[in-house]
Amino acid sequence: MQDVAELQLLFKKYLDENQFHQKPTGLYEPINYILSLGGKRIRPVLLLMGCNLFSDNIAQALPASFAIEIFHNFSLLHDDIMDEAPLRRGKPTVHVKYNQNTGILSGDVMLVYAYEFFLQLDNKIRIPDIIKTFNQVAIEVCEGQQHDMDFETRNDVSIDEYIKMIEQKTAVLIAGGLKIGAIIGGALEEDSNHLYEFGRNIGIAFQLQDDILDTYGDPEKFGKKVGGDIVQNKKTFLVIKALELGNEDQHTRLSHLMNFDSNDENAKIEAVKSVFNELQIREAAEQLMESYLVLAFEHLAAVNVPEEKKKVLIKLSNELMGREV
Amino acid sequence: MQDVAELQLLFKKYLDENQFHQKPTGLYEPINYILSLGGKRIRPVLLLMGCNLFSDNIAQALPASFAIEIFHNFSLLHDDIMDEAPLRRGKPTVHVKYNQNTGILSGDVMLVYAYEFFLQLDNKIRIPDIIKTFNQVAIEVCEGQQHDMDFETRNDVSIDEYIKMIEQKTAVLIAGGLKIGAIIGGALEEDSNHLYEFGRNIGIAFQLQDDILDTYGDPEKFGKKVGGDIVQNKKTFLVIKALELGNEDQHTRLSHLMNFDSNDENAKIEAVKSVFNELQIREAAEQLMESYLVLAFEHLAAVNVPEEKKKVLIKLSNELMGREV
Repeated sequence: MQDVAELQLLFKKYLDENQFHQKPTGLYEPINYILSLGGKRIRPVLLLMGCNLFSDNIAQALPASFAIEIFHNFSLLHDDIMDEAPLRRGKPTVHVKYNQNTGILSGDVMLVYAYEFFLQLDNKIRIPDIIKTFNQVAIEVCEGQQHDMDFETRNDVSIDEYIKMIEQKTAVLIAGGLKIGAIIGGALEEDSNHLYEFGRNIGIAFQLQDDILDTYGDPEKFGKKVGGDIVQNKKTFLVIKALELGNEDQHTRLSHLMNFDSNDENAKIEAVKSVFNELQIREAAEQLMESYLVLAFEHLAAVNVPEEKKKVLIKLSNELMGREV
Repeated sequence: MQDVAELQLLFKKYLDENQFHQKPTGLYEPINYILSLGGKRIRPVLLLMGCNLFSDNIAQALPASFAIEIFHNFSLLHDDIMDEAPLRRGKPTVHVKYNQNTGILSGDVMLVYAYEFFLQLDNKIRIPDIIKTFNQVAIEVCEGQQHDMDFETRNDVSIDEYIKMIEQKTAVLIAGGLKIGAIIGGALEEDSNHLYEFGRNIGIAFQLQDDILDTYGDPEKFGKKVGGDIVQNKKTFLVIKALELGNEDQHTRLSHLMNFDSNDENAKIEAVKSVFNELQIREAAEQLMESYLVLAFEHLAAVNVPEEKKKVLIKLSNELMGREV
């Protein structure tokens, strides 16, 4: 098995060789821009790992890994327009750097190019199956984004609905990438499905971890401002769980804090956290996260390849969960 | 060969049976809305005709015809956002009836569903080829829209650039639909390519006709206000040709008229038309349009099927060009 750094390098090389030099530049330059903003390339690397579990020919999965990365960046691009986000990875978002119409149209053509790269796979027979898997993922990502937007104006979002939303918006793309990698590598359907379930469950765990760290993370290690979700009144797992568990007084305090923007951000963060702490929300979130991790690793264990080959996947998962191994 | 009305009915039935009832409704309702706005369903009907030239099994092409119609409406939906258009076929556009974010996201998922319907074709072996053809079309449609937006701020657009833009924005979708229909019907590559060229050339002719009718059409027959393009300062073929052919005086008059919005729309229309008339722009446009029609029918003639089978395509083309047969 190739390790994470090797796969990242392999992917980076493929990405560099596949810059969009087509015309009109107004359409293609923003694509190179957003793809250049970097990140850890988790999704394409996981796809390559999915392939590598079943085949030593990793290169054959590179077009699909690029397709997944293009799709991911397409969804970030359009989400940033919808969320009116000014920054992405510390740089101006596409609709800010260029303009909104460019953001819409460059995103559209990125989605088409995702399919174009799937078509470049050597094994043409597998293409319909791979696109079928990808379509399901792409549809769920859109549905998840719609749920996320719908939730902003709702006060009765349940934990189940929230988990479903993060599953669709985040987890299925990780799951689908792993499964597509496995299909390309020649996996049996049962194994590629276990890998999908591994990705789906670990994706939900990642997102719950993200919610926890945003409020309880170590300011030294956490990239963004700790408490950012609270300041922005985001309906994270922590908030939804607190509204579910809280008594009338706690409910009122939390609702009040979320409905009024405070001049003193730190005071607001502390006040919200004290409601969370009274209800042991952090513990509830960590417990739920652990249960998804357990499920994830059960599915990984069921994949019928030598355990040795799974080590790199387990290592990357632990790194992403911020755990020493 | 089935006639136009029969094919329209067949398509309408398929569309009705494939309404989007999925959740969340906020994502799917706008898709049913825009698809219900109607129109003559030219693109799917042409795709079915492309199939019918080579096969009596038209039903097998219905999923692809729906894919093309979904894609067409996706592009209208996103273009309407970019153009800030309030109305589409006399009804509120999606971003007006719902909101902009819905317009972006529902459009995105429509594009995914176009691929989803291509996957429903019975003959799985042909799917990669069909998606390849479709991707090329979809990419060109996006490029054409970008060129169209770029042209708004340019004063040096050439006739060649304009033709290329309308080819990409309008003609290749007609061409691609015909070709995909032919592939589904089992056509040889040579024949499906001739059909593509028929569609591409006739698509350019349609758009030139549209430019001519917008200024010179019969107010009784023309659905919109005659002269609308002039009022909106649109850079149609007529304007670009006049700027190319005009002397300094004509150039100055036309530029002046296009740079200032007039309170008297009819006076503006007449003043612009008098520049066109001095330069015989209508004749130049009609001549060019005829040359594309000739090319189109040459390619149709080269398609190796009995002439009898082509009659319905010729009839529909003539109807669309507003010609009695």
